[in-house]
Amino acid sequence: MLIALLPGDGIGPEVIAETVRVLDRVTDQLRFETAPVGGAAYKAEGHPLPPATLDLAKRAKAILFGAVGDPDCDRLERHLRPEQAILGLRKELGLFANLRPATLFKELADASALRPEVAGAIDMVIIRELNGDVYFGEKGMRKTASGRREGYDVMSYDEDEVARIARVGFETARARRGKLCSVDKANVLETSQLWRDVVIEVSAEFPDIELSHMYVDNAAMQLVRNPGQFDVIVTGNLFGDILSDQASMCAGSIGMLPSASLDASQKGLYEPIHGSAPDIAGQGKANPLATILSAAMMLRYSLGLSAEADRIEAAVATALEKGARTPDLGGKLTTTQMGDAVLAAL
Amino acid sequence: MLIALLPGDGIGPEVIAETVRVLDRVTDQLRFETAPVGGAAYKAEGHPLPPATLDLAKRAKAILFGAVGDPDCDRLERHLRPEQAILGLRKELGLFANLRPATLFKELADASALRPEVAGAIDMVIIRELNGDVYFGEKGMRKTASGRREGYDVMSYDEDEVARIARVGFETARARRGKLCSVDKANVLETSQLWRDVVIEVSAEFPDIELSHMYVDNAAMQLVRNPGQFDVIVTGNLFGDILSDQASMCAGSIGMLPSASLDASQKGLYEPIHGSAPDIAGQGKANPLATILSAAMMLRYSLGLSAEADRIEAAVATALEKGARTPDLGGKLTTTQMGDAVLAAL
Ligand SMILES: CC(C)[C@H](C(=O)O)[C@@H](O)C(=O)O
Ligand SMILES: CC(C)[C@H](C(=O)O)[C@@H](O)C(=O)O
Repeated sequence: MLIALLPGDGIGPEVIAETVRVLDRVTDQLRFETAPVGGAAYKAEGHPLPPATLDLAKRAKAILFGAVGDPDCDRLERHLRPEQAILGLRKELGLFANLRPATLFKELADASALRPEVAGAIDMVIIRELNGDVYFGEKGMRKTASGRREGYDVMSYDEDEVARIARVGFETARARRGKLCSVDKANVLETSQLWRDVVIEVSAEFPDIELSHMYVDNAAMQLVRNPGQFDVIVTGNLFGDILSDQASMCAGSIGMLPSASLDASQKGLYEPIHGSAPDIAGQGKANPLATILSAAMMLRYSLGLSAEADRIEAAVATALEKGARTPDLGGKLTTTQMGDAVLAAL
Repeated sequence: MLIALLPGDGIGPEVIAETVRVLDRVTDQLRFETAPVGGAAYKAEGHPLPPATLDLAKRAKAILFGAVGDPDCDRLERHLRPEQAILGLRKELGLFANLRPATLFKELADASALRPEVAGAIDMVIIRELNGDVYFGEKGMRKTASGRREGYDVMSYDEDEVARIARVGFETARARRGKLCSVDKANVLETSQLWRDVVIEVSAEFPDIELSHMYVDNAAMQLVRNPGQFDVIVTGNLFGDILSDQASMCAGSIGMLPSASLDASQKGLYEPIHGSAPDIAGQGKANPLATILSAAMMLRYSLGLSAEADRIEAAVATALEKGARTPDLGGKLTTTQMGDAVLAAL
């Protein structure tokens, strides 16, 4: 099975390298091809998502993605910036459903900024829509009537887009504790009003699921006050961006959390939720566990290799139990040594 | 000096009543007129912001606002919902600058979901723009080319709107620790790109202020991980809505935090950041301190009565030191008893 490896910028290559070692240990069914993406691709080939990279991503059965983002590229025109690569992949491949589990490994209860009793109760999945919203609407710079510069971006969702992601939310809740919370800002936004209307319509197909609605400002509060109340959250692209990063931090280090971005037929792109961290790139300080756990999600969701996924997750837990800690977790291991610790536990 | 009292819905009337008792004790220079707003106004007069209420707000030197929001009104057409009253007041009166201080009273270190050492370091002001962004752009429902329902909202800012709020940010930072963090999503949004460009242009007028920029997803993370790093945050209407509620919860109970919404000449609307809490309305369970502290901000910013503002803030601290606690703070006092505790400390 062909896996596209897109290491990207900053710490991307380091965390991908450890992950490939782990994958090679648990299965010999994978074949890897690597291609540049993000700032690295711009520097090498003049575009953050070169045609050959997109082609590889299309051919592959799944994509393992490092991170993109490079301060050298901040002043480029928008369509050439590293971030466009991940946005382009999501859109071109129809990866509309972003699944971000947030749970605290009990070994890391001390890593959260939240009180241990609050953080310890976190066990949720945030489902973020990835193909619509203000990310992909018409946008640009224009002049106002009085000749002043104005930036604008159109936010929108249509009913099919909402229904599709709502179903992922309901299905996910069904496989868990049966509770779905839809987050919007329906008291202000028409986009949110349609979102809420359609989620309610779709809920008729899932009478066994307990549906609730929450405004995004309240959700941001509740994720701090009592994150244990959530099972599955479903929300749009922009609110999902903010809330999932917030939730990840409530659950401890951002170096621990994986994500999957799926299309309609379970093909997916898998990436750690952390970014490229240019400040520590190339120093062996990055925590590879978020990427290793993303690879486990890949085995489970896109490749049908659940047993292998379980083995990886168990090995990560064992490594943590034995005290393996990179600097973000208050330890001294290098990226490679953390990879070694997981391999040793396999 | 004429003060418009707009108690609104839910717990609004209860918390305003205690606040008026406190104001009457510290000064005899105020004259109060009351008018209905929100769901209460809709039920009485068919509109959430009746003309006489708007007129009173315009005539008054400052406005003391309770809260709006009433589940009975959720299915009304948007322009009749309670929330439209606060949006209408902000827009009609040109209240473009929302100031939300977030600090933890040291007596309440235990009330935060964050670890005491993390929460104890919080001492920031969030400055949220209130007159623009996706709140006030063109919005509505339309059909897509294939006849599907679509909701849309246009996000935008022009350079004058950004420069005006940026200056409030820089001035506020100058009066504090000299650090301003501007929050946007410039890697995705053109509105944010203009925001960032203009904030950088305005920074030339404030060479003494240390300016930084942060993406909103990262800001949501940093507010949990290490909120003590922030002095002043300036951001747009939507991001400010989310982040300021999140920050308030990091700082402990939402029942404690005041806010000011100012126009260009220091006229202002003052309100607690909490909502109408219909679930506890009329039961004497609401914490009036956020509103009492909002009144202190009113005395200081709009009425030039700083000494009286200081007295109120000191009395609140004394009441807390002596152990006064409403249920949200883990105590048993009623709303009125908490008012008594503040009066006793004056
Ligand atoms: C890099 C950026 C465009 C991206 C997003 O906003 O979607 C990132 O923050 C994410 O969450 O994957
Ligand atoms: C009630 C609502 C429209 C309002 C807002 O979103 O601005 C509220 O959440 C606030 O923050 O004051």
